[in-house]
Amino acid sequence: MTRVSIVGASGYTGLELVRILLRHPAVELAHLAVREPAGQRFSDLFPALRGLCDLPLSGLDVEAIAQGSDLIFFGLPHTSSMEWVPRFMQRGIKLIDLSADYRLDRADLYRTAYGCEHRQPEALEQFVYGLPEFNRSRIAASAAVANPGCFPTSVELALLPALRRGLIETASIIVDSKTGISGGGRSPKPAFHYPEANENLAAYKVGRHQHEPEMEQELAKMAGGPVDILFVPHLAPMTRGIFSTIYARLRETADTEEVLALYNEYYRGEPFIRLLPAGEAPQTRHVSGSNFCDIGMAVVGSTLILMSAIDNLVKGASGQAVQDMNIMLGLDETLGLL
Amino acid sequence: MTRVSIVGASGYTGLELVRILLRHPAVELAHLAVREPAGQRFSDLFPALRGLCDLPLSGLDVEAIAQGSDLIFFGLPHTSSMEWVPRFMQRGIKLIDLSADYRLDRADLYRTAYGCEHRQPEALEQFVYGLPEFNRSRIAASAAVANPGCFPTSVELALLPALRRGLIETASIIVDSKTGISGGGRSPKPAFHYPEANENLAAYKVGRHQHEPEMEQELAKMAGGPVDILFVPHLAPMTRGIFSTIYARLRETADTEEVLALYNEYYRGEPFIRLLPAGEAPQTRHVSGSNFCDIGMAVVGSTLILMSAIDNLVKGASGQAVQDMNIMLGLDETLGLL
Amino acid sequence: MTRVSIVGASGYTGLELVRILLRHPAVELAHLAVREPAGQRFSDLFPALRGLCDLPLSGLDVEAIAQGSDLIFFGLPHTSSMEWVPRFMQRGIKLIDLSADYRLDRADLYRTAYGCEHRQPEALEQFVYGLPEFNRSRIAASAAVANPGCFPTSVELALLPALRRGLIETASIIVDSKTGISGGGRSPKPAFHYPEANENLAAYKVGRHQHEPEMEQELAKMAGGPVDILFVPHLAPMTRGIFSTIYARLRETADTEEVLALYNEYYRGEPFIRLLPAGEAPQTRHVSGSNFCDIGMAVVGSTLILMSAIDNLVKGASGQAVQDMNIMLGLDETLGLL
Amino acid sequence: MTRVSIVGASGYTGLELVRILLRHPAVELAHLAVREPAGQRFSDLFPALRGLCDLPLSGLDVEAIAQGSDLIFFGLPHTSSMEWVPRFMQRGIKLIDLSADYRLDRADLYRTAYGCEHRQPEALEQFVYGLPEFNRSRIAASAAVANPGCFPTSVELALLPALRRGLIETASIIVDSKTGISGGGRSPKPAFHYPEANENLAAYKVGRHQHEPEMEQELAKMAGGPVDILFVPHLAPMTRGIFSTIYARLRETADTEEVLALYNEYYRGEPFIRLLPAGEAPQTRHVSGSNFCDIGMAVVGSTLILMSAIDNLVKGASGQAVQDMNIMLGLDETLGLL
Repeated sequence: MTRVSIVGASGYTGLELVRILLRHPAVELAHLAVREPAGQRFSDLFPALRGLCDLPLSGLDVEAIAQGSDLIFFGLPHTSSMEWVPRFMQRGIKLIDLSADYRLDRADLYRTAYGCEHRQPEALEQFVYGLPEFNRSRIAASAAVANPGCFPTSVELALLPALRRGLIETASIIVDSKTGISGGGRSPKPAFHYPEANENLAAYKVGRHQHEPEMEQELAKMAGGPVDILFVPHLAPMTRGIFSTIYARLRETADTEEVLALYNEYYRGEPFIRLLPAGEAPQTRHVSGSNFCDIGMAVVGSTLILMSAIDNLVKGASGQAVQDMNIMLGLDETLGLL
Repeated sequence: MTRVSIVGASGYTGLELVRILLRHPAVELAHLAVREPAGQRFSDLFPALRGLCDLPLSGLDVEAIAQGSDLIFFGLPHTSSMEWVPRFMQRGIKLIDLSADYRLDRADLYRTAYGCEHRQPEALEQFVYGLPEFNRSRIAASAAVANPGCFPTSVELALLPALRRGLIETASIIVDSKTGISGGGRSPKPAFHYPEANENLAAYKVGRHQHEPEMEQELAKMAGGPVDILFVPHLAPMTRGIFSTIYARLRETADTEEVLALYNEYYRGEPFIRLLPAGEAPQTRHVSGSNFCDIGMAVVGSTLILMSAIDNLVKGASGQAVQDMNIMLGLDETLGLL
Repeated sequence: MTRVSIVGASGYTGLELVRILLRHPAVELAHLAVREPAGQRFSDLFPALRGLCDLPLSGLDVEAIAQGSDLIFFGLPHTSSMEWVPRFMQRGIKLIDLSADYRLDRADLYRTAYGCEHRQPEALEQFVYGLPEFNRSRIAASAAVANPGCFPTSVELALLPALRRGLIETASIIVDSKTGISGGGRSPKPAFHYPEANENLAAYKVGRHQHEPEMEQELAKMAGGPVDILFVPHLAPMTRGIFSTIYARLRETADTEEVLALYNEYYRGEPFIRLLPAGEAPQTRHVSGSNFCDIGMAVVGSTLILMSAIDNLVKGASGQAVQDMNIMLGLDETLGLL
Repeated sequence: MTRVSIVGASGYTGLELVRILLRHPAVELAHLAVREPAGQRFSDLFPALRGLCDLPLSGLDVEAIAQGSDLIFFGLPHTSSMEWVPRFMQRGIKLIDLSADYRLDRADLYRTAYGCEHRQPEALEQFVYGLPEFNRSRIAASAAVANPGCFPTSVELALLPALRRGLIETASIIVDSKTGISGGGRSPKPAFHYPEANENLAAYKVGRHQHEPEMEQELAKMAGGPVDILFVPHLAPMTRGIFSTIYARLRETADTEEVLALYNEYYRGEPFIRLLPAGEAPQTRHVSGSNFCDIGMAVVGSTLILMSAIDNLVKGASGQAVQDMNIMLGLDETLGLL
């Protein structure tokens, strides 16, 4: 059994990780650590798991956690991860960071997106971007993985085959995403106050969301050249789910069935990609609580419309992290996730 | 035109008051004041009213507000009202307080319910409890009104005829209420964080809600003797609405039609009470945004089940306050409310 | 007082019309008619209006309605309106149809969009498209108005100034709309069954929605040449609201402030258009229950992102119909709507 | 491996059963049968399970199903089960019916509650009421189990210890339940139409719900004498969950801690009962998707307030059915459910 710990276990991604790992036959939970322990158990914070996970929430005792863990998930907020992750490196422990701190290749991109200097820029190249459908073998060979962001996951999985096969123009891809409120995290904020969020739909961070550099970085690798996206996220009145509608220009005439055939061929054998019949749209409800990414598409004129639905906390965060863990440990990739 | 101001205009009750008063043909809004002005307009805080109410949010300048107002609504939180209300008394200005600070008759009850000493206990007797269906003439004669709480309004209106006519036992009346989240106010709190409140129903403050003393005080006046209620509120995943289900023991055998006939007779002519046909249940959606209280009932055995639905921000707060204002000003009671 | 009737009063648009007209000082409701009367009153169908509108729901007695009405709103479903509207024409009665039956200029477009032959193609040219911000004087001069669709309203109002001023390319405008469920009407259907619609977001009728021809027809008039849009609607888990995000290519370099200045100038004096500060996004909650269309925008590179929010039942249907009525009757356009 | 089939697999309970059984290590799904097969697969009906369960939906071929199954769950509607269940009896196949058809002991009670004659009254005594916490050994010994209703489960589990230990009076126990909309099933109906159910709370079937006879029958067995309950259900705007608030009169003075101690002792070792600390209220969100019943309580005066939360589709239906299956098969009771 692999001993797994979570550093920064008090957020929604922490809850989702524990939910998934409790069902995983090959791991046992070791430490659940938080920055400000208050003598609580995990289930005091998350009563849904009372009786299922009553482990104590310990403080960030680096030595104790390092000694007791074979693999560590980091669920700390952006900019906090890079404070703690370095202390666990070079110890033979596998690391998976769910924050954005190690996703970008360049420190200057990080500074622009997250507003502060990166504390450990030299480590950036050690972290593999944890999108299995794109980086499987590199993830398998790595000791450190940066788990992708939720929006980037939904967008990159939708575009990957089209970009790899040169189907679409790479300038001005439009991405219109709609997310549930849990994506904003566990801390109360005015925009997430129930009376403000309920019965409401609104765009935010229009064209300036911090996930755009991450998306363009990875999409460029997929395309083999620069990719320019215009990303507009929207908050929707639901707890979970991301639905991304992507508009791209086809390089050559094609119809929906042809593109779908290409996607089916490209994603053959992928355990967590479900391609819908031509013209059928995915629904976030159908992936709720699961690690699937459902993709639908329709060609209208010379525009390829791609639609992807994921659960922002599962395939968009903790589920994908466990999928990466399975790969790093040489286990069946779907273990604990189906 | 009556010049009306709101002291403490930045909460949901403030927004609802302004919405209603903008349509009121006999008043004009004078001052909208907040404790910590930040150079904003009302519509900066509440963009729904952009173009409808762009008045500035001023500070609590007592002299300026007093000089410029004929009637003042207080939308400050509990314990804050009693700091500011005294400064506006004895000036010939009519006052309507939406907080709990002047509802209770006795300072000791207040201390128990709200956890601090009342600052102006001598003024308590000057404030009339603003439930029009019970206190109409006293409200009309008063210069100061304490607007009832939301739960108390839904419960007292449902029980009033039964208590006045001695229909039911007054010991152990059970009140099971379900409220929308806006009742908790505008400040983000963990319980009101969308992912916590959505898809969730839970009781809270079981048997110890601060509205119980207020309810027992007024119900006792209606009954002409002590009334003991057991009150359990629940948070429901919606923005507006209170549904109260009340279980009382009949003193004598009666059927639903008989009790309904008594209610119809008692409430004849009441502009904001709607009695439903026998056995039909009210729905909070049917009173959403309106000042109505819908009441339904069913006799089962020797138990009288009363059900009432109100909009917690309208009949449960701001609508009722305007209804009180109309009475105090000698206007048609429904002005601005239909 | 103008005597106003509603033919086809049993849908959500009927309810919204009555809500608005009850507050309108210059009209009185005459007939509320339905195809299959069952001896009910309007408030039996819509208990929210009990005590406010207890008129009976009569059958479609053409003569009685014609005799008793100065203006008639038609709230019948698409394809049904054109069965009944002709019977009321040429009688000196003003007609406003809320269905799609008279919006399109050409019968062949209608056949393609709605799947059947138009029954009264010769009358199409008599109906003015009821978008006041575009057709005000023609509406004022007309006896027959075809009220625009909900999505088209949100899209056309957002694009009108940009098209009139030649700001944007007219090929491949992308429109990504998100709507509340009430847009689907009052009849239960699997997609609108609460457990299916709640906690769910999904696209539908991708690239083949019946509103596309209507939008392209009107946008072409605004642009003075063909306009090609790609329209993808999505169902969002809320009752009311439409949020449309529109992506258009600027013809010449401009920044957000410049475009906003142009919009402010173009829409100066428009009572129901609210333009938000640069980069701020509208929210459907802020227009809920009101006739406003809130518009925000951001220029990113050479793309102009336009965002508009309306209440699908108000500015997207019944509110706009009353706005048209006010124009046709020579009344203040905002009467009953503020 | 036990071969398990579902007769009547097209409802929400069918979906929940399949979800749970897919994770069950000791069973394999054999037949998923519906009354009106249309050549579909299970995942065509429930796309959330695409790739997880693509079994075909077959027709009700009694012989084929009987030959191929060791245990059958019946997910047919009330009154339909008793048409089909008899054809599978006396074949050595274990049967678990999720409808109400075999829950009541007497055919006359059934007629009153469900409005028609029972087709197989002689079989009623063969079915054990499937509440494990009460009937574990009888379930283990039986070949036929009638799975309890959702409301009855939430109420009976809350009252069981108090009744068995004679803590409370058995006349006039008040039960106020709040349920999510999925309890109404998969067929669209006006009350479950999203715009009608959203942002709405309302009581229904006041004092005349068909679950009352079932509850009184089982509670009487627990108490050793007649129990009279008054049951008022309410629809709440959420998909899943039942929260029941129960008001009972204590026979002798006790405080919350004493009653809680008794419950802890009575329910010791029960894998799916979670008792909350004194005064803490359960939340439906904390049991969402799980087979737990969370119970909280508070003594106020001489009233014992019991609160229970379950997921109506899991512990209220399919989860409990699988728990019963485990018992009948002599497996660990929690298999597939944690």
